[in-house]
Amino acid sequence: MKFTTLKENLKEGINYVERVIGKNLTLPILNNILIETEDNFIKLSATDLEVGVVYWLLAKVEEGGGIAVPAKLLSSFVNSLPSEKIIIKKKDLSLDIDCKNYKTTLKGFSQEEFPIIPQIKEGDQIEIDSKGIYDGLSQIVSIPIVSQTRPEISGIYMSFTKKEIKMVATDSFRLAEKIIKINSPLEREYSFILPQKAGYELLQILSDKNKKLKIYFSPDQIMFEILMEDQKHPQVRFVSRLIEGEYPNYQEIIPQKTDTQVLLQKEELLNQIKVASLFSGKVNDIKIKADPEEEEMEIFSQNPDIGENKSSIAGKTKGEKQEISFNYKYLLDGLVNIKSSEIVFELNGEDGPGVLRPVGDSSYLYVVMPIKAN
Amino acid sequence: MKFTTLKENLKEGINYVERVIGKNLTLPILNNILIETEDNFIKLSATDLEVGVVYWLLAKVEEGGGIAVPAKLLSSFVNSLPSEKIIIKKKDLSLDIDCKNYKTTLKGFSQEEFPIIPQIKEGDQIEIDSKGIYDGLSQIVSIPIVSQTRPEISGIYMSFTKKEIKMVATDSFRLAEKIIKINSPLEREYSFILPQKAGYELLQILSDKNKKLKIYFSPDQIMFEILMEDQKHPQVRFVSRLIEGEYPNYQEIIPQKTDTQVLLQKEELLNQIKVASLFSGKVNDIKIKADPEEEEMEIFSQNPDIGENKSSIAGKTKGEKQEISFNYKYLLDGLVNIKSSEIVFELNGEDGPGVLRPVGDSSYLYVVMPIKAN
Repeated sequence: MKFTTLKENLKEGINYVERVIGKNLTLPILNNILIETEDNFIKLSATDLEVGVVYWLLAKVEEGGGIAVPAKLLSSFVNSLPSEKIIIKKKDLSLDIDCKNYKTTLKGFSQEEFPIIPQIKEGDQIEIDSKGIYDGLSQIVSIPIVSQTRPEISGIYMSFTKKEIKMVATDSFRLAEKIIKINSPLEREYSFILPQKAGYELLQILSDKNKKLKIYFSPDQIMFEILMEDQKHPQVRFVSRLIEGEYPNYQEIIPQKTDTQVLLQKEELLNQIKVASLFSGKVNDIKIKADPEEEEMEIFSQNPDIGENKSSIAGKTKGEKQEISFNYKYLLDGLVNIKSSEIVFELNGEDGPGVLRPVGDSSYLYVVMPIKAN
Repeated sequence: MKFTTLKENLKEGINYVERVIGKNLTLPILNNILIETEDNFIKLSATDLEVGVVYWLLAKVEEGGGIAVPAKLLSSFVNSLPSEKIIIKKKDLSLDIDCKNYKTTLKGFSQEEFPIIPQIKEGDQIEIDSKGIYDGLSQIVSIPIVSQTRPEISGIYMSFTKKEIKMVATDSFRLAEKIIKINSPLEREYSFILPQKAGYELLQILSDKNKKLKIYFSPDQIMFEILMEDQKHPQVRFVSRLIEGEYPNYQEIIPQKTDTQVLLQKEELLNQIKVASLFSGKVNDIKIKADPEEEEMEIFSQNPDIGENKSSIAGKTKGEKQEISFNYKYLLDGLVNIKSSEIVFELNGEDGPGVLRPVGDSSYLYVVMPIKAN
């Protein structure tokens, strides 16, 4: 293997693929990046066996071949090189790297030791703009928790139809749903549960720039591809295994009607909840008081060791009088993912779920269970 | 106690004093900030018994008194309040705090439980601009290490005379010296060893803005005061205990002549050492080769498990040919604290110390011991 490329191109590729690499002690080959030639491209691959990322960059390839090299070392090394041409040549199980005034030898491993990253070649696929998926995923990705007893809620539920993409996440105490309108050729619905970690990786790969995104469906795996500017060759490919099991029928949890609605300024609410959190009780509880006869909602918290705090926030209230405790962390998590400046806070008594909805955006909702009084 | 002040003023004061507070489990009162009235001022105090910080802010004082309140809670709480007027009133061992739409009660402790922060009232004192001390201290403060057997090198040696301030730090492998010219009324020399932690605190308090700084000398303690804009009342007072013992005669270590001198670009040298560090050996060793017949200096490192790296940096060389190993960490530490773009690297063989000097600034030097070949 021998090729020439630019430092900046190689650096970008390494940055894309290295993120999936953890510290794997049982299978140390996974701490490497596989470098291979493929026609006029250099192909960089990394995997943790759950997800795999492949990145292609243009290079002047003089001799084909491949080698696996330690990811962290390669990344630190290439990042520190001057922004110049790099000549890379494989010699036995090492890479000789020449860049301006640096001459380096980096020890590696045979490419045969590196696991094969699966690829979905058949079946349905769609092409969409990446921004919608990026925005939606970033609003819900932090919600799932790792659950041994209920692995299906450890991931993000995604459903694709002709008209929309639904993304849902829950940890059984709160739930977020995001719906994106699309126009796809799908004749049937595809739904699956994406592991949370894969969700985070996908966010990194998509970034918030809009790109053409291809999605390939299969029963056990999902594959995403971002195309190069010529729209012909993939730039990055991301493959993830899916979580087995059936996602809970979450629609049942979303209230169909509401007892009380309060219209609030999001930033002010966020801030008052943060202050209240300093005085919250043992179960992170803070109390919300809404009253249609007042033009304000009240937030109260009390901790016998620390003190107490009461604040009021302007808010038009419709419906019944309410006094409900919530875990402040769950409220904050929902609010920080809302982008609108105004929100509607729906309350449904001590037993019914509260709902946060951005004003002017019906694509997102956040359901949160109250803390029952003893 | 009852007073009114502005949120921003209180916040600034809290930020100054809270930094000295660690997490003290044996003496929990030290996790508090003492709030007291003093004439038209509110006085905030915090201490870890090694250093103490006192901050004064103007307030409308209606009733005198004092109370100690948990520092972290107070800080998070005040930071989150709206930028408005705050009315604070002591009731038993609590503070009632009113700010716009917030009403809060914060539990505290009796001011009698709080330790007295010492104050130097007699003896010599000088007044100087703070910027010189700030710049010098920031160049050397990271060098000492905590040493049980040699407590005297755990701190920063400072010497004040009529004409100059000398600041020195070492961990026995490297040493940095900074000299600041002053014009003081001192009739004798004052020298002491400031604990490293106090050095860091002092940097935070001084910040890189130039202010009038008063220094009060005593045998066991040192006191620094920054004055308010009216130059009459102190804004912040910082008191630290001193490290006992005699500072080593460090002048002996600074070479009086040099075998080889290389003139180098600092940033390029820093970068090449960083790359070399990736391939350094067990004792962080990298090798420097200088040759007066070449216009370049060479940096080489090798690790049998990882690979090897060689780079060359343009550098005019005078004197003898050299090939010396250094700990790359020590070289980096010295270089990052040099502000000039060019440096002179002095080499004195495998047994003699190397010296880094900024070109055009004779106030700073950094001595580093080589790693001897086996």
